[in-house]
Amino acid sequence: MITAKIIGAGGYGGVGIAELLLGHPEATVACLVDVAGVGLPISEEYPHLRGLFDEVIVAADDAKAKQPADVVFFATPDGVGMKLAPAELAAGAKVVDYSGDFRFNSSEGYADYATRLGMSTEHMSEDLLSTAVYGLPELHRSEIGTKVNLIGNPGCFAVSCILGLAPAVKEKIVVENSVICDCKTGVSGAGKKPSAAFHFPVRQDSMNAYKLAGHQHVCEIERELSLLGGGEVTITFTAQVVPVCRGIMSTLYADLNRDMPPCDAVALYEDFYRDDPFVPVLPSDVAVGTVHVRGTNYCNLVVDVDAR
Amino acid sequence: MITAKIIGAGGYGGVGIAELLLGHPEATVACLVDVAGVGLPISEEYPHLRGLFDEVIVAADDAKAKQPADVVFFATPDGVGMKLAPAELAAGAKVVDYSGDFRFNSSEGYADYATRLGMSTEHMSEDLLSTAVYGLPELHRSEIGTKVNLIGNPGCFAVSCILGLAPAVKEKIVVENSVICDCKTGVSGAGKKPSAAFHFPVRQDSMNAYKLAGHQHVCEIERELSLLGGGEVTITFTAQVVPVCRGIMSTLYADLNRDMPPCDAVALYEDFYRDDPFVPVLPSDVAVGTVHVRGTNYCNLVVDVDAR
Amino acid sequence: MITAKIIGAGGYGGVGIAELLLGHPEATVACLVDVAGVGLPISEEYPHLRGLFDEVIVAADDAKAKQPADVVFFATPDGVGMKLAPAELAAGAKVVDYSGDFRFNSSEGYADYATRLGMSTEHMSEDLLSTAVYGLPELHRSEIGTKVNLIGNPGCFAVSCILGLAPAVKEKIVVENSVICDCKTGVSGAGKKPSAAFHFPVRQDSMNAYKLAGHQHVCEIERELSLLGGGEVTITFTAQVVPVCRGIMSTLYADLNRDMPPCDAVALYEDFYRDDPFVPVLPSDVAVGTVHVRGTNYCNLVVDVDAR
Amino acid sequence: MITAKIIGAGGYGGVGIAELLLGHPEATVACLVDVAGVGLPISEEYPHLRGLFDEVIVAADDAKAKQPADVVFFATPDGVGMKLAPAELAAGAKVVDYSGDFRFNSSEGYADYATRLGMSTEHMSEDLLSTAVYGLPELHRSEIGTKVNLIGNPGCFAVSCILGLAPAVKEKIVVENSVICDCKTGVSGAGKKPSAAFHFPVRQDSMNAYKLAGHQHVCEIERELSLLGGGEVTITFTAQVVPVCRGIMSTLYADLNRDMPPCDAVALYEDFYRDDPFVPVLPSDVAVGTVHVRGTNYCNLVVDVDAR
Repeated sequence: MITAKIIGAGGYGGVGIAELLLGHPEATVACLVDVAGVGLPISEEYPHLRGLFDEVIVAADDAKAKQPADVVFFATPDGVGMKLAPAELAAGAKVVDYSGDFRFNSSEGYADYATRLGMSTEHMSEDLLSTAVYGLPELHRSEIGTKVNLIGNPGCFAVSCILGLAPAVKEKIVVENSVICDCKTGVSGAGKKPSAAFHFPVRQDSMNAYKLAGHQHVCEIERELSLLGGGEVTITFTAQVVPVCRGIMSTLYADLNRDMPPCDAVALYEDFYRDDPFVPVLPSDVAVGTVHVRGTNYCNLVVDVDAR
Repeated sequence: MITAKIIGAGGYGGVGIAELLLGHPEATVACLVDVAGVGLPISEEYPHLRGLFDEVIVAADDAKAKQPADVVFFATPDGVGMKLAPAELAAGAKVVDYSGDFRFNSSEGYADYATRLGMSTEHMSEDLLSTAVYGLPELHRSEIGTKVNLIGNPGCFAVSCILGLAPAVKEKIVVENSVICDCKTGVSGAGKKPSAAFHFPVRQDSMNAYKLAGHQHVCEIERELSLLGGGEVTITFTAQVVPVCRGIMSTLYADLNRDMPPCDAVALYEDFYRDDPFVPVLPSDVAVGTVHVRGTNYCNLVVDVDAR
Repeated sequence: MITAKIIGAGGYGGVGIAELLLGHPEATVACLVDVAGVGLPISEEYPHLRGLFDEVIVAADDAKAKQPADVVFFATPDGVGMKLAPAELAAGAKVVDYSGDFRFNSSEGYADYATRLGMSTEHMSEDLLSTAVYGLPELHRSEIGTKVNLIGNPGCFAVSCILGLAPAVKEKIVVENSVICDCKTGVSGAGKKPSAAFHFPVRQDSMNAYKLAGHQHVCEIERELSLLGGGEVTITFTAQVVPVCRGIMSTLYADLNRDMPPCDAVALYEDFYRDDPFVPVLPSDVAVGTVHVRGTNYCNLVVDVDAR
Repeated sequence: MITAKIIGAGGYGGVGIAELLLGHPEATVACLVDVAGVGLPISEEYPHLRGLFDEVIVAADDAKAKQPADVVFFATPDGVGMKLAPAELAAGAKVVDYSGDFRFNSSEGYADYATRLGMSTEHMSEDLLSTAVYGLPELHRSEIGTKVNLIGNPGCFAVSCILGLAPAVKEKIVVENSVICDCKTGVSGAGKKPSAAFHFPVRQDSMNAYKLAGHQHVCEIERELSLLGGGEVTITFTAQVVPVCRGIMSTLYADLNRDMPPCDAVALYEDFYRDDPFVPVLPSDVAVGTVHVRGTNYCNLVVDVDAR
């Protein structure tokens, strides 16, 4: 049985990993750590878990929080993982960080990301950066499984853009720097903390764009696509929020550098994801809604060519 | 031209009264006062007003805030109006308070209300209580129009319950103390301040009851119904919140003390509200939705008798 | 392995039972029958099932539809089950019907129900009525498990009212005929068929009551409560629809026939449901939202006494 | 007083024009025509109008429907206006058609549009096409006001794209054929008719793209932009639907053909719309939500340059 510790267990990311692990036959959630809700069962904050999972949340300085675990998840804001991961790694754990702390392999890469968020560009565990792997199984499955102990989980928008563009960029069928990512997200991606922008009366029935030309996920999308394409990829990216709870829909555009019938483009994508059960390529003539993947691992793709 | 000053202008109640006055041919909004957004036009917080109404919000201690006005609205939390109304009244203004500060005519009445909210039961302007009138035009139109300068605006749930029960209680057709008020509200009633309960991902697709047997609006409902019925009325009240923005639907039950065909009950209600343009009595066989009155003064009534 | 056939598989009820059976270790869905979508996999209509369950829907006259199964579910409109159940029972199947066809044990009981829906009061399999059991495990577990082959599944509102009132009625602590059921439902309960009342622009942000004093679920609620209480119970019932997808919240009122502190009422309910894992009695001071039970078997109860 | 007749009065477009005219001091709605709801007041279908506007809907062959009016609005599906407009024009009316019937000035233009909708490409009033003007005041104000009697009202997506791109195309600052229109709409745009795609349980909490590379509004966008830019403009267009009731958000991309700081681009847009009160250019650093323009004439623009 693999034991797991979740730091930041009370947030949407933390409870999400707990739910996945509850259904996992070979894993057990040994410890929940958070700064809020300490001393209360997690089912107090998430009543749908009542009776199914009533593990009590402990503070980081609690004796239980200091017990080692096989895997430690940091579902925490930027800056927490880089501070606490070294001790967990030293204790022999595999570490998965949900923030941007370990998505980059160089201090320059991290600094670019940190700048976009207005944070200090200095990384507190700089030496670990080169050992981390980007946690997108479709592109890094072999490394994730065996070679590394430190995984920087991808950003939500980034997953949709990278999976949607990877085959085209890898096969070099698109014009350099013609990529546009128009992304729409639900509200849960902004986390559990109430805010004026996500207050029900304000958000219900309204959509808007935000962080025009400045979203931080651009960094990791360009990094991953550049690795795949063998050159430096620059993208245009627009983040938008719509009144759904969970779900992302990214519409990705690129100029083709050759004539290509839609069926060939589809075939190229199907080939690329042949062994990836969670990335199906669906027909372009039916409506593919975000609700069809809500709460799952799936990232549904639709590929089309506008001949005009 | 009647000049108006709005204290607490940045809240949902404050901006609501501003919108109503903007469309009023004989009124002008002379001054907006609030503790937040000072120095900014109200259209910064409510962009739909941009270009239509860009009045700048001032602090309470600003010289402009101290200028007299013909009418002063307190769209403020409990406790503000009772502190500041005396000065405005002394300066000759009519005062309309949106909180519970002036809904009661005795200190006992107020104390009961304050207790339910866990507030101090002491009223800071006790002497004014006897001069205030409950601002429900259908029941107190003559007083509001001429006799008084101090109006305590009704609570949102209370309006729906009182208007729905007034004819039956006045005509003494219902069994004493058999009244049940089952009330459902949208989220805007809880105000502009973000909170965990009204965070979009939590509220969307969920409904719940709250303050079981303890809601503060019970006091004023019982007060008004007792005045009408000539005896002491006690009600059972349940507050519930559903994922709509604006709107209240109250289902009101009472045992009839005589046999009465539905058409007679309807006629009794129609008579009562014959001169009240905003309280239509609608047929019971069509669905009457809250969206039909959203953003209006209307309170639609449907009256039915369950013969069984 | 238990084999199941689902008639009306393409509706919300049909796909719901399919989803439950997919997760059941000892059951297999052998056949999906419907009048719509024939020849297409059910995942065409419900894309979230794609790759997980792509069973093709067949017509009722298809050879496959005529194969026997261990259990046959009728997730069909009123009138279908009573016509087709006899053949399935004769072939040795257990039959579960989701409509009102087998919720009553007498032709009078059925006729009352049918009248409320404006349907013919004649039952096409009258002789089967006495053999059917009402499919609410908390009240009829022993019969469902062993004695009968024909189960009439309860109506959605009815489940919430019966479970919420059963302990009080059984223990005779409430005044006869003082029961009021104020029920609010989400939209999925009205089924998959698009209609003007449930068109997104009309329903979003609106709630309304419907079928005042005439809802058909009243019949089965009164039937079950009368069985429990040993006398004839008559209720007042109001159906309301709010803009959520899945979920029912029923607020149930009754006058107590004795003084009883809230804790005693809670204890009485806890005793009643001690062996029913899906009916927890929750504290009255926290908000219990419908989203906490969405997609589950749970029916959360909150019990309170208004001493006033 | 200008008299207006509305054909198709019962649809969302028809009732929308009625609402606008109700508030117009110099216009009166003289006649409502539709195929549904004949004989009933329009407030039966739209209860929020009850008491405010209870005009009865008549059939097209009713004597009242044949009376002339100063302006006739066709809020009807494609193909109705082209059949009935000639008679109204002959009777001296100005005609405004909401469908695509008169958005094009040539039979080729119309045929291209009709093809995308799978309709017959033959226009029944071909001779009228050259006399029609595209009803977008910001581009055709002088013609609309005086010169013509036949106006083809723009498509909803088209308005947002044309207004958003017009200044850039007119001033020739963008690379030919680099234009991408990523458009998101609410559900009311699809009209009043219930459908599986817009059934509340299906639409709530879900978004999707549709008609990939084939939406019919592309024709008129390209037509208008070509007229402005003096060359043939080809665009890439994606239609998407999100769970809001009313509102469109279009994110429009084009490569600049020169270096240009954001402030210059903003200035160019402000100049273009200097005399257009309903097209404000807003700062790019605040969230501009669709709810801010819901139910108004406004089309808010935000202009930004991604220097990368």
